[in-house]
Amino acid sequence: MSDNIRPGEIAFHDDPALTASATLCFIGRLQSDWSKGTCPRNLTEARARGGGGARIVLDPNYALALTGLAENQAIWILLWMDRARRDLALQSPGHRNGPRGTFSLRSPVRPNPIAIEAVRITELDIEHGIIESDATDGYDGPPVLDITPYLPGLQHSTGPLCERPAR
Amino acid sequence: MSDNIRPGEIAFHDDPALTASATLCFIGRLQSDWSKGTCPRNLTEARARGGGGARIVLDPNYALALTGLAENQAIWILLWMDRARRDLALQSPGHRNGPRGTFSLRSPVRPNPIAIEAVRITELDIEHGIIESDATDGYDGPPVLDITPYLPGLQHSTGPLCERPAR
Repeated sequence: MSDNIRPGEIAFHDDPALTASATLCFIGRLQSDWSKGTCPRNLTEARARGGGGARIVLDPNYALALTGLAENQAIWILLWMDRARRDLALQSPGHRNGPRGTFSLRSPVRPNPIAIEAVRITELDIEHGIIESDATDGYDGPPVLDITPYLPGLQHSTGPLCERPAR
Repeated sequence: MSDNIRPGEIAFHDDPALTASATLCFIGRLQSDWSKGTCPRNLTEARARGGGGARIVLDPNYALALTGLAENQAIWILLWMDRARRDLALQSPGHRNGPRGTFSLRSPVRPNPIAIEAVRITELDIEHGIIESDATDGYDGPPVLDITPYLPGLQHSTGPLCERPAR
């Protein structure tokens, strides 16, 4: 994709999309009311706008692995941003001045376009592999890679790491 | 690997390791003082035990993408747990009673064995692609998939989702 690049942007020498170090399996898909143009910028905005009708539908192969989750539980969802290019080291998102390193940005454009979001389960149908959650900032369609319990203090600190005070 | 299974464990019908929906590129490696036997169970325990000498060494192809990060900044690290089996829907970790669904556990055994951890940058060498951080709960060696800013309120809430009160 390096023929389509903004001023100041720099592509990786080796294209990450062509470097297959390991394989992912898609376990399901995210469904939401958002589309590319209407997508909120983050979960806080998504919640302020009603959540977006977030729903995960798993491939039947993976439904049994939901056993032990419960409604009202908080979980991490890992998504694969399958429409994002992967080849930029420096990029110039529209709302920022000048190019920035990819790892200093939340842009979906990254070598491995994985998005993480912490949400709360509102409805759970283990038999059919369906999770409805309180919100998503993802648009309709991306593949789901993983679901795992959200446990502050384990993957992240509830204290010293937080840059904004807890409400 | 379904020949080596504990009582009550159930493997997926289709082995996720053989389902290549997309490819990952490894962008570097995590170095730490921990090994399989000495690894802390989580980041809180890792910090209590001194952090573990956490250091990420990026492949030279990816170093430039660190531009814009800074020492003392909090980041997410995504790791590929390359020694974990991927084929269990229900599993019986040693410290729990009876089998549990994979998505209800933090076990590295999962269809896509991606671990996430939020840490603080203590030293940053962009030219050589090296990040030292305050802690890791990973053992020495796993491939790194991504580095992204840690911004409470965006990927996760600082408030209502937290199951434990912030300190």
